[in-house]
Amino acid sequence: MSLVVIGTLAYDTIETVHERREDVLGGSATHFAVAASHLVPPRLVAVVGTDFRTEHMEALRARGVDTAGVEVAEGETFRWSGRYEADWNTRHTLDTQLNVYEHFDPKLPEDYRDSAFVFLANASPRVQMRGLAQVTAPTFVVADTMNLWIETARADLDELLRRVDAIVMNDEEARMLSGEGNLIRAARRVLDMGPRYVILKKGEHGAFVMGPDVHFSVPSYPVEDVVDPTGAGDSFAGGFMGYLAREGDHGPASLRRAMLHGTVTASFCVQGFGIDPLVEAGTADLTSRTADLLCIVTV
Amino acid sequence: MSLVVIGTLAYDTIETVHERREDVLGGSATHFAVAASHLVPPRLVAVVGTDFRTEHMEALRARGVDTAGVEVAEGETFRWSGRYEADWNTRHTLDTQLNVYEHFDPKLPEDYRDSAFVFLANASPRVQMRGLAQVTAPTFVVADTMNLWIETARADLDELLRRVDAIVMNDEEARMLSGEGNLIRAARRVLDMGPRYVILKKGEHGAFVMGPDVHFSVPSYPVEDVVDPTGAGDSFAGGFMGYLAREGDHGPASLRRAMLHGTVTASFCVQGFGIDPLVEAGTADLTSRTADLLCIVTV
Repeated sequence: MSLVVIGTLAYDTIETVHERREDVLGGSATHFAVAASHLVPPRLVAVVGTDFRTEHMEALRARGVDTAGVEVAEGETFRWSGRYEADWNTRHTLDTQLNVYEHFDPKLPEDYRDSAFVFLANASPRVQMRGLAQVTAPTFVVADTMNLWIETARADLDELLRRVDAIVMNDEEARMLSGEGNLIRAARRVLDMGPRYVILKKGEHGAFVMGPDVHFSVPSYPVEDVVDPTGAGDSFAGGFMGYLAREGDHGPASLRRAMLHGTVTASFCVQGFGIDPLVEAGTADLTSRTADLLCIVTV
Repeated sequence: MSLVVIGTLAYDTIETVHERREDVLGGSATHFAVAASHLVPPRLVAVVGTDFRTEHMEALRARGVDTAGVEVAEGETFRWSGRYEADWNTRHTLDTQLNVYEHFDPKLPEDYRDSAFVFLANASPRVQMRGLAQVTAPTFVVADTMNLWIETARADLDELLRRVDAIVMNDEEARMLSGEGNLIRAARRVLDMGPRYVILKKGEHGAFVMGPDVHFSVPSYPVEDVVDPTGAGDSFAGGFMGYLAREGDHGPASLRRAMLHGTVTASFCVQGFGIDPLVEAGTADLTSRTADLLCIVTV
């Protein structure tokens, strides 16, 4: 079934303890779409500036991504710059330049409106809801969010939470949103706010999904050489939603399988900068790693 | 098959953000033995002072623990005092009084020497090896250790690592012992040091076992109300070894199942002070929680 992502295309400048890279193709929608593209051809809604390089648009199209929903606006593309500590868990944002993204107003092309599976990547809840409103009859809607919106747009976020089927968040965001330190209690509190499912990402410690008919926990895939974790969360979401869209199902058994696919796509993402490792990975690589992960979790 | 644990019986004074308890029955061997007692009657080797209360020895015997190997020495029982931060992950040791444990020289009763499964709880590697040397033909030997021995008794620890089948350690200890930040690399390094298996405990993030024929990861059991995490690691080891001893097997399939049992016993341990929650738990409670956990991890 069809899958649409509304999010950002960006240029990232990334510093790790080993390396520094400038203007790496990034952004939530980029990572999501490339991850999902291994399973279904995703539809992309985003805005870029006139500096966005043709070769990058071509790279997305080459992955089967529908870029008809990418608006080109006068100005520069969204830019983010960050630095990771040696343990990878601590990330410092050095600079954020919203540029054309500051006035992003998602416009879905006519033929995107019948999308069944919808991913609202991290954005202000108002922008997420404006995007969602253009989808006629979505089957399964998942939203991401971040600490900024929890702190500054809580009423809007509460409204969004009542309109989506699932929310994906990391441990820190879940604790902040719920006011609970214990992650299981935090997840239950978030469920009380409206969504049917919460998908809680714990980085190197894996992820779990919780809802009325499922509670499933998966460890992260054992990656020994992390190069750059940027985009891991969106790659997880892309593998997760890509699987559901390909199956055309969001029942509990599919959600469990989708968690494995999300985990595997995220594991490729962190092994290089930008989208390179996920573009280079073949179907056989993903299948093989999914089988490995299944073995690691099977009692 | 028979199971012996060589470790400590202690009185703990524990401070949490909610409560303070004095002279709680604790110690590695106590938590291990009570956890294992749900599966097999363990044999206990330890030393206590003349202040060790009869009712506590009776409580262990009532669980089916063989206390013939508990030596009563002139002086006071080992005492430990610690404080937990609100997140439970940070523990401050406030005081340690070795007392009679300072000169602990494990002496296995004659009828313990045929023990098949052996757990060497945290102690100096010399003491662990002196205990192990008294077991005639062990089937499967697991040792625990701590940062103190990694820093101060490395040569002895290296020797111990070559004599045991498995080492159980937490994430911090694995990083310290291996010099690797990445836990998968850390585990592989530790395997190179001699043991066939490494069991790596990550507290609330679960645990994994790695070896030539197994790599299995399990999340922690979702406990919403942690009361006191003291002894969780030893309770894990007790459930793990208790299962293997009951099955009389340490093949990869049994190791996977044993990880579930360890996880479940640890989950009871943290729900109260000392051994109370594990003593109060019935077989039905453990079985039910094991079934829950199996559901949480099954794809």
